[in-house]
Amino acid sequence: MKDEHRVLAFAAANRPRFIEELRAFIRFPSVSAQSKHAGDIRKCARWLANQLRHAGLDRVKVVPTEGSPVVYAEWLRAPGSPTVLIYGHYDVVPPEPLSEWKSPPFQPVVRGKDLFGRGACDDKGQLFCHVKALEALLETQRALPVNVKCLFEGEEEINSPNLATFVERNRRALSADVAVMSDTRFLAPGRPAIAYALRGKLIAELEVRGPGHELHCGNFGGAIHNPLQALCRILATLHDRQGHIAIPGFYNRVRRWSQAERNYMAHTGPSDRDILTDAGAEKAWGEPGYSEYERTTIRPALSINGVVGGYQGDGAKAVIPATAVAKLDFRLVPDQQPREIERLLRQHIACVTPPTVRSTVRILAAAPAALVDRRDRALRSAAFAYRKSFGVSPVLLRSGGTIPVTHTFQRVLGVPTVLMGFALPEDRIHAPNEKFHLPNFFRGIQTCVWFLRAVASEPKRAAFQRAQLAIP
Amino acid sequence: MKDEHRVLAFAAANRPRFIEELRAFIRFPSVSAQSKHAGDIRKCARWLANQLRHAGLDRVKVVPTEGSPVVYAEWLRAPGSPTVLIYGHYDVVPPEPLSEWKSPPFQPVVRGKDLFGRGACDDKGQLFCHVKALEALLETQRALPVNVKCLFEGEEEINSPNLATFVERNRRALSADVAVMSDTRFLAPGRPAIAYALRGKLIAELEVRGPGHELHCGNFGGAIHNPLQALCRILATLHDRQGHIAIPGFYNRVRRWSQAERNYMAHTGPSDRDILTDAGAEKAWGEPGYSEYERTTIRPALSINGVVGGYQGDGAKAVIPATAVAKLDFRLVPDQQPREIERLLRQHIACVTPPTVRSTVRILAAAPAALVDRRDRALRSAAFAYRKSFGVSPVLLRSGGTIPVTHTFQRVLGVPTVLMGFALPEDRIHAPNEKFHLPNFFRGIQTCVWFLRAVASEPKRAAFQRAQLAIP
Repeated sequence: MKDEHRVLAFAAANRPRFIEELRAFIRFPSVSAQSKHAGDIRKCARWLANQLRHAGLDRVKVVPTEGSPVVYAEWLRAPGSPTVLIYGHYDVVPPEPLSEWKSPPFQPVVRGKDLFGRGACDDKGQLFCHVKALEALLETQRALPVNVKCLFEGEEEINSPNLATFVERNRRALSADVAVMSDTRFLAPGRPAIAYALRGKLIAELEVRGPGHELHCGNFGGAIHNPLQALCRILATLHDRQGHIAIPGFYNRVRRWSQAERNYMAHTGPSDRDILTDAGAEKAWGEPGYSEYERTTIRPALSINGVVGGYQGDGAKAVIPATAVAKLDFRLVPDQQPREIERLLRQHIACVTPPTVRSTVRILAAAPAALVDRRDRALRSAAFAYRKSFGVSPVLLRSGGTIPVTHTFQRVLGVPTVLMGFALPEDRIHAPNEKFHLPNFFRGIQTCVWFLRAVASEPKRAAFQRAQLAIP
Repeated sequence: MKDEHRVLAFAAANRPRFIEELRAFIRFPSVSAQSKHAGDIRKCARWLANQLRHAGLDRVKVVPTEGSPVVYAEWLRAPGSPTVLIYGHYDVVPPEPLSEWKSPPFQPVVRGKDLFGRGACDDKGQLFCHVKALEALLETQRALPVNVKCLFEGEEEINSPNLATFVERNRRALSADVAVMSDTRFLAPGRPAIAYALRGKLIAELEVRGPGHELHCGNFGGAIHNPLQALCRILATLHDRQGHIAIPGFYNRVRRWSQAERNYMAHTGPSDRDILTDAGAEKAWGEPGYSEYERTTIRPALSINGVVGGYQGDGAKAVIPATAVAKLDFRLVPDQQPREIERLLRQHIACVTPPTVRSTVRILAAAPAALVDRRDRALRSAAFAYRKSFGVSPVLLRSGGTIPVTHTFQRVLGVPTVLMGFALPEDRIHAPNEKFHLPNFFRGIQTCVWFLRAVASEPKRAAFQRAQLAIP
């Protein structure tokens, strides 16, 4: 039996066990945004480290940080071969609203060909493809085709506040030729995609303060400016009627793409109909003159993620709240700079806040956009791997999301990150009833195996380190 | 010892016990808006009934309704004397946000001269003034100076959905010459007030629906209309920049008052500074050309009580919610009709909802404004009672609040309601750290005693039953 066949036969034979292990992984409520889950985060990290030990990796460590621990492991017994840095995250977003889950978010269950649970897809399931690929290789071959370093963090969903420092402090230990991660989506079932572009982001809270304490709106309604009402009016100034962001100067540095690039996108990317179907939306919305795909990738966006103010419970409560807060999420594109956008936002908010209330802007996170050259050889290795496992060539896609670590890897380690994802558009990441499509789990494991093999045949090279922002 | 002195001496001697009993009353978390407290509501009703039995009232009953039970009691042994219907409510508003309470809302504590706890003032403490006045009279005199019927409900804070039916079904049993309730405020400490006008209300929920499920705003931001953003834009259309309500036709029926009436209000009512100080607000806001007092009484108001949509927790979560809801509270004035305002609201919302989302308006409660003739003799009896207990004449004030039962009593029983309140503006009703000023509790008991004595000397009359809406 050929080597590859033994590896893949092992992976195939162990599918029931792999599913059970992934269910155990999902059972940890490793919600990084909620401090009550700090203990679950640590337990989840230790469990993951044990998985890596069992897979046969060396120097497995759970490294404390200011926040969630980093799980590190390596296998460096292929001198002269390239080194692949495998990144993933074991934290998840909050499961709320709980009432909308068909089964409890941390009690994963298989229904049909899908495994349901918070983190099933983002990112525990996809991260696990790599872990199980390493196990299958080491179990059957006693070796990996390349050197490997695993770096799994527990704070991606809260914007990786400690990862940049960790990478900077461990610059030498983490040196590699290429990074790979699986935290992005297919274009559609059976149509794999490699993301070569990510939007950046600027996450902010806008607080509006009114009266000194909550008031009864019967007694005071009409005579005291309600901060929630003022906040809504301020938020309404952030877009114009067409869906443009109406902050002066916001579009100044937005890169204009050539017609050739836009044609490439129209040829390869999802249609408006695809995107609306994925969203369960009836109608498109957004900047005129751009496709839905362009609106979510080469154009910036501002989403109000939440408004917190006043009475939130059932029924009614006659209050004027003392404060109201909006959670704002800007997605940025080349060549917008987060610091400049922050300055424009602050200027605009100061300008539109009426004198009867006070407002504050707090920045929670920021990251610039990231691009990988579509001609990069590591992308070709990934494309080869998809062809071997899924039987089709992947499309090269832009993603509207943000993975700040890709920017960190480029800046600190000088390596591009291959975004080799296995999620489906309908996997409902971040939403109730998140799931992972099990056929993608199994083929994802195969893809990870083939990717390491393909990288092994690449020459070790400095070419990887050319500027990521150079794009045709 | 004269009769009155024995009554008041009894009340004075029993103050420590009265405080302990009021604390026991407050300890029931009788939150009518939250179904989890249904059991607490029932326990609280039974406890209150026992208090009335202990006070010496007859035919004490806890009467089930579709919602919270009504507590009824009577003492009808003064044939030929007028009958007073005493109304109050034993339910309270939700205590949230809990983190802002200095002591737990349902563990009442005395700090200085104030008793802190949810419902201490609204309305358990004020209701209790009547109960303890009845007890003091019956304990020392073995009789009341008038006939009395007590009607204490448990759903005032959720707009009394079952009380009108209850009053209609028991029209004969509840017949009376005048109704009295204590659920309104002083102008300032030491400056009692009788409310002769209440605003009406229309309570509504506005729901905006967008995509079929919650979306990741990295993937979809810019291409799908965010219902929370659409909601904010719709809410921003409800007021103009000056603070007028911008719903077409909204002011059509708003009564214009004579200069004489406005002069009376300016002479008797709180100043702009008083109202701002009570609110802890730095700046006034609202319709130009009206005082703060006028804005909260003879002018209608719209308050956004809460917005529920998207992520509400700590930190950030990158979502576009599927739906967003605003809780709207209109306060109406003569001669606005709630049904007509509902129609205008629905028309306006339909008009300003963009085609990329859908909206629904739900009405939760409605009541028209209520007025009592300032020359009514029952108001003079109340004024006499305040002079005897607080040593000063009360001012006759308009209240911006709404007590739908006053309209029900006028419509069904044909009696005016005397709003003889003991709350202070700084008692923070409906807010964290609600309190009742204990000197007002003790003098409130005396006031209730003197009120019944004063009503006893009034002739039984039909004059009470003239139209409440006739005002000079």
